[in-house]
Amino acid sequence: MTSDLVSKEISAEEAAELIQDGEVLGVSGFTLAGYPKAVPTALAKRAERLHANGKPFQITLFSGASTGDECDGALARAKAIKWRAPYQSNPDLRSAINRGEIFYTDAHLGIMGHLVRTGSLPRPTTAIIEASEVTSDGKIRFTTSCGNSVEYLRMADRIIVELNSIYGDALCGIHDCYLPELPPYTHPIPVVNVLDRGGKDYVQVDPKKIVAIVRTNQGDTIRPFTEPDAVSKNIGGQILEFLAHERKKGRLPAGLPYQSGVGNVANAVLTAMARDSLQEPVSLFTEVIQEAVFELIKADKLVGASGTALTCSADAREYFKQNAATLQKKFVLRSQEVSNHPEVIRRLGVISMNTALECDIFGNVNSSHVCGSSIMNGIGGSADFSRNCLLGFFMAPSTAKNGAISTIVPFVTHLDHSDHETHIFVTEQGLADLRGLDPVSRAHKIIENCAHPDYRQQLNDFLDYSMRSSKGKHIPFALDRAFNMHLDFLEKGTMKE
Amino acid sequence: MTSDLVSKEISAEEAAELIQDGEVLGVSGFTLAGYPKAVPTALAKRAERLHANGKPFQITLFSGASTGDECDGALARAKAIKWRAPYQSNPDLRSAINRGEIFYTDAHLGIMGHLVRTGSLPRPTTAIIEASEVTSDGKIRFTTSCGNSVEYLRMADRIIVELNSIYGDALCGIHDCYLPELPPYTHPIPVVNVLDRGGKDYVQVDPKKIVAIVRTNQGDTIRPFTEPDAVSKNIGGQILEFLAHERKKGRLPAGLPYQSGVGNVANAVLTAMARDSLQEPVSLFTEVIQEAVFELIKADKLVGASGTALTCSADAREYFKQNAATLQKKFVLRSQEVSNHPEVIRRLGVISMNTALECDIFGNVNSSHVCGSSIMNGIGGSADFSRNCLLGFFMAPSTAKNGAISTIVPFVTHLDHSDHETHIFVTEQGLADLRGLDPVSRAHKIIENCAHPDYRQQLNDFLDYSMRSSKGKHIPFALDRAFNMHLDFLEKGTMKE
Repeated sequence: MTSDLVSKEISAEEAAELIQDGEVLGVSGFTLAGYPKAVPTALAKRAERLHANGKPFQITLFSGASTGDECDGALARAKAIKWRAPYQSNPDLRSAINRGEIFYTDAHLGIMGHLVRTGSLPRPTTAIIEASEVTSDGKIRFTTSCGNSVEYLRMADRIIVELNSIYGDALCGIHDCYLPELPPYTHPIPVVNVLDRGGKDYVQVDPKKIVAIVRTNQGDTIRPFTEPDAVSKNIGGQILEFLAHERKKGRLPAGLPYQSGVGNVANAVLTAMARDSLQEPVSLFTEVIQEAVFELIKADKLVGASGTALTCSADAREYFKQNAATLQKKFVLRSQEVSNHPEVIRRLGVISMNTALECDIFGNVNSSHVCGSSIMNGIGGSADFSRNCLLGFFMAPSTAKNGAISTIVPFVTHLDHSDHETHIFVTEQGLADLRGLDPVSRAHKIIENCAHPDYRQQLNDFLDYSMRSSKGKHIPFALDRAFNMHLDFLEKGTMKE
Repeated sequence: MTSDLVSKEISAEEAAELIQDGEVLGVSGFTLAGYPKAVPTALAKRAERLHANGKPFQITLFSGASTGDECDGALARAKAIKWRAPYQSNPDLRSAINRGEIFYTDAHLGIMGHLVRTGSLPRPTTAIIEASEVTSDGKIRFTTSCGNSVEYLRMADRIIVELNSIYGDALCGIHDCYLPELPPYTHPIPVVNVLDRGGKDYVQVDPKKIVAIVRTNQGDTIRPFTEPDAVSKNIGGQILEFLAHERKKGRLPAGLPYQSGVGNVANAVLTAMARDSLQEPVSLFTEVIQEAVFELIKADKLVGASGTALTCSADAREYFKQNAATLQKKFVLRSQEVSNHPEVIRRLGVISMNTALECDIFGNVNSSHVCGSSIMNGIGGSADFSRNCLLGFFMAPSTAKNGAISTIVPFVTHLDHSDHETHIFVTEQGLADLRGLDPVSRAHKIIENCAHPDYRQQLNDFLDYSMRSSKGKHIPFALDRAFNMHLDFLEKGTMKE
């Protein structure tokens, strides 16, 4: 490190002192990958000290997506967050949001950076970005995520770099820091294949904007990959079988890339692909490259993987570092504006697989809110993909809470994906191909194929009652009983009659 | 017309005889523009004759969007439609759908052709396309719409051409018959400006597929342009004022194209633009080019207009024909896959304006279903634009049915556009800029700014009750009272307490 950079090296505590009450912070990080760790923790402690002295201190926190406990958790517990967007998954932050103590704006992840760039959301004044390299002339290379970091670096007045040495130079070259131009004068995004690149592997900033460099050597807090459970394996198997069926019918060309959401079921699908001896090589055009990707690599079945984040447990990190030279050629980490861009998703013909919280019998999906009022994590990128994919799956176990909740309901309590754009539902009970069906046919198929047998009668009763009582018969939908199953659950702890 | 074409000239009745029971028909037409008129009317009569003789006859009808009474109306009254997609506006067809007699699949208009091309929906076997020209080597030029006609012509086994002479050659050159390639091997859509073209102004088909040519000389059934009413003018004025405000704030670059939905309010905005002496020249990148565009042309304020349909009353048609040489250079009619494509809409930075049936206090919009069960027209292209635009407005009068209905409700009974993607609501009461707001702030702003004073108390009462009773406070949403206003309306004919 050159002397001008050394002079900016300070402690996390000193860096935290640079942040003012009321600021908008733009941080790196996407789903526990590549988020700043030391400065947010120090900032939380500073907020607690200030609060103890009766002084106000709260910031607005914009990120790529969720960040780890050292950031979202620490700042939430310190009551240092006024407003949070666009995604979160930390239990303490989530609780504070659901108590109504923190403003939270849930946003499509692919549009968040665009909203900030075009002035629909406020501009971050300070960017806190985890980097694997920073040079005296202002080149910054990221770690395990791109997220909205390019946008925040460009727009912020001040930049705090967390220089994390844990990956060494293993991630060097993996990033593509291209951002689409802004209207009115723009050109197509130059990505027509999964591994295409549009920009450089670093971001160039004005070095004068870098006000602090804080050294760290700390991995992302990612739990190790675990073997998928029986339900996830079942759902994954059904999806592979359906894809083979569609291919036979001539409706699905070979070589389309996959997007898989975060979580067990998505991991199970990729694992099943890795283990299936008939599976052709797989491309991923996704948001988060999860650890199951290494199963595909070990089975020599990965063509390439594009995402905005790479989530690695400690073991996977070591594997990556040992095989960096090979793996760098198989991965691209992009800005989430590009990884989740409708233009590229539609162009590539992505096959999309996302987890649902609940699905209703008419084909609507709730990805984000429990009983309509409590945020779980957020809509994330699910709609970026489901709305623009060639073929889309929504996956869920048919029940939750040991059977007390049916994930198939008369009407979703929060609607993230509408009947106009959902293609296929899969539970461990079965698969419902909804494409082209009218609402009544959709309802019959979803109840028959996807609902748990314990709940089929209740759902059919709702449909029968609706057929008799609702004004229009196009969508037989009885407003007076739409949420009865949810109200039962809230009152009695179970949806069962 | 050459002799080989003359030999295919038959009457509409003879052409109707070529269609078999159970066929999938792909017809031209988009929102009463460019739809076939003679053959569907003859087909309806044939169906009635067959039904009178106890013989079954029903077809599936895929179009661009709605068609005129000669097609949708006649076929619905003849009980000749089994399944209809993706949009409709004919009262008789709508009633049959809402009685549950016709399967209807409401679809995003920009994706319909893509779904057919990729096998998610069945392939039309016969295409019935209104054309202004057909040549012996199989070149077909459309009339007032492109819709999904290119797709249907390519995929159908048989083509019936309605050769309509009413426009003469005035529409010659106005069409761009480009279709995006299909995955997995595709390239960017070559449209970076409103008037850019990617293809030829005609479709080349195998002339052997043309089985019939039916001559007509009949205009689209479009009602004459009427002066906007006071409410529409009010809403239009507010939008123009807000745009000027955003431009002053530096959040809105000049020169962005507009999309305006179908209807009075959208017409009012364009009319206001035409009459505003300060208004800069306007580009339209829209779905339906409505008659108000001629106001812009007469005021010399139109840079160019791109759409998939041009709706002209008899007077407007004469104006177009008289000024065809000039107007052809100002208009492009594209396939609806392109006019409504997320790639192009996002790239151009479209400002989108669409009419809502109802909006809820949390920011969700219903564009399609009355009381959740009866289809009105359909979602149309509203989501294609609202989801990908740079700035989006949803517009509605604050009440309907002489005040018996509040268009601002606690929760929409059908959700077409979710709180994650709606930007701005406008009623004659005021405008609510929802960008970046958390759910509670959105609710307060929508009630305060947009709801009719007669309903504000009821809506605030719902919000207060929800704040007290709902499990999570992130979206204070009381499931047990979500639809009370709608249930009151269904029971008592008014939402008023």
